[in-house]
Amino acid sequence: MERYRLHGSPDSANFIVRMILEELGLPYDYVAVDRLISEQNSEAYRRLNPQGLIPVLEVPGQDAPMFETAAIALHLADTHGRLAPGLASPQRGRFLKWLFFLSNTLHSDLRISFKPERYVREPETALSLHAGLTRRIAGSFAHLETELATWSGPFLLGQDLSILDHYLAACARWAQIYRNEGKWSLAATPHLRALCEQLEMRPAIHRACELEGIEGKPFTEPRPVQLPGTTA
Amino acid sequence: MERYRLHGSPDSANFIVRMILEELGLPYDYVAVDRLISEQNSEAYRRLNPQGLIPVLEVPGQDAPMFETAAIALHLADTHGRLAPGLASPQRGRFLKWLFFLSNTLHSDLRISFKPERYVREPETALSLHAGLTRRIAGSFAHLETELATWSGPFLLGQDLSILDHYLAACARWAQIYRNEGKWSLAATPHLRALCEQLEMRPAIHRACELEGIEGKPFTEPRPVQLPGTTA
Repeated sequence: MERYRLHGSPDSANFIVRMILEELGLPYDYVAVDRLISEQNSEAYRRLNPQGLIPVLEVPGQDAPMFETAAIALHLADTHGRLAPGLASPQRGRFLKWLFFLSNTLHSDLRISFKPERYVREPETALSLHAGLTRRIAGSFAHLETELATWSGPFLLGQDLSILDHYLAACARWAQIYRNEGKWSLAATPHLRALCEQLEMRPAIHRACELEGIEGKPFTEPRPVQLPGTTA
Repeated sequence: MERYRLHGSPDSANFIVRMILEELGLPYDYVAVDRLISEQNSEAYRRLNPQGLIPVLEVPGQDAPMFETAAIALHLADTHGRLAPGLASPQRGRFLKWLFFLSNTLHSDLRISFKPERYVREPETALSLHAGLTRRIAGSFAHLETELATWSGPFLLGQDLSILDHYLAACARWAQIYRNEGKWSLAATPHLRALCEQLEMRPAIHRACELEGIEGKPFTEPRPVQLPGTTA
C-alpha cells in the first residue's frame, strides 16, 4: 500500500481524521462504510477493527491498520511534524493529557450518549444514563473552556493550532446536533466559540466538510448530515 | 521542580505510572492523596487536575502538571526512549491504537463499572449499567487476547515489552478484584495470563507493588489493598 486509505462514513469520527489529512495536505483514498447496512459489523470490516467502529486508517509502512481516532490523529501529526508539539517541547505533556481527555472522557461520553442502548437494555435506564452523561459532558466542556482561558487562546495550546482543536471542535459540533436533550450550546463557552470560528475560516476545514457532506458552518451553526440513501 | 512528583493513592491508576517509573529507573517524589477524606476533590488538588482524578504527575521542564494515566505513561516512555516503539517504527501505529483503546474503552468501562452511581442516580439503574459494562469489558479482554495471539506474545507488541503491557495487566488486576460481579477471570484469556506471569517476574514490578501496598501476585492472584486508616 502506497497511500493512506481512510474508511469512514459521513460525519462520523472520520471527520476528525479527514480534517487532519486535509490540513497536512496528504493524498489518501477513501472507502465508504455503509452504516445503513451496518457494514462496520461485517466480517471484512472487523478484520480492520475488531470493535466494528469507524474510522480505520491504513497507513503506509505500518504493520497493521490503525483504529482509534486520537491514535490516528496523533500518529499523523507526529510523523509529519505538524499540528503537535515535538517530544522535547514543554507543551508536550499538556498536549497529551488533553488528547487523552478528549478521547476517553468527552468523546467517550458523547458516543455513549448517542447510543445509551448499547450499554443498558431498558429504555428508561437508557434515559437516566443519557441524563447523567449530559451533565458530565457539560462539565467537560467547562474544563476545556477554563483551559482555553488559561493559555489565552485562540487554540487549546494557546497560539499554536494542533489536532486538539480539530478534535474539540468536532465534539462541540456533535454535542449540539445529536441527541442534545440538555440543550448544550456554545453560548456557555465563548472561548470555545472563538476557537470554532477560527477553524471555520481554514480552507482545509472547508475541503473536509465538503467531502463529508457537511453543509454550512460546521461548528458554530451545525446541521446534521443526510446519510446517502435516506430522506429528510 | 527538579524531580518527577507523583500524586496518588494505593492501587489507584497511579500504580501504572509507578510501574513505569520503576521500569525506567527514574527518581521521583510521591505525594499521598487521601481518598478517605476525598482529598482528590479539594481545591488544591483540582488545581492539578480539574476533574479531581488520580493520578497527577508533575514533570520537570513541562509547563503544566500532567494528568491522564495513558498520557503520562506515553510521555515517560517517549522522552526516555524505552517501553514504546519510536515514531518511525512500523509498530508505532499498532502501539498507539491499543494505548488509546486501553484508555478510552477498557479502563474507561472499568472506571464506570466501579462507580456507576456517578453516571446514573437510581440504584437499580446503576446495576443495569454495571451489567452492560461487564459484558463490554469481557469483550475488550477477548479482543486483546486475539491481538496477543496474532503477534505470538508474550507481550502485546510481540517480543518487545511496552507500557501497553503494564496498563493491560493493571486492568486485568482490577477487573478481577473490584466489583467483579460477572466473575471475569484470566481463565478465559491464556495469552493474557502468560503476559501477567511475565510481568510478575520483573523486579521493577515488585518494587512498584511494595510501594503501593500490593501484596502477593498482583495480576494472577490479585487481592485488594487495605487503604491506610481502614480495617479489614
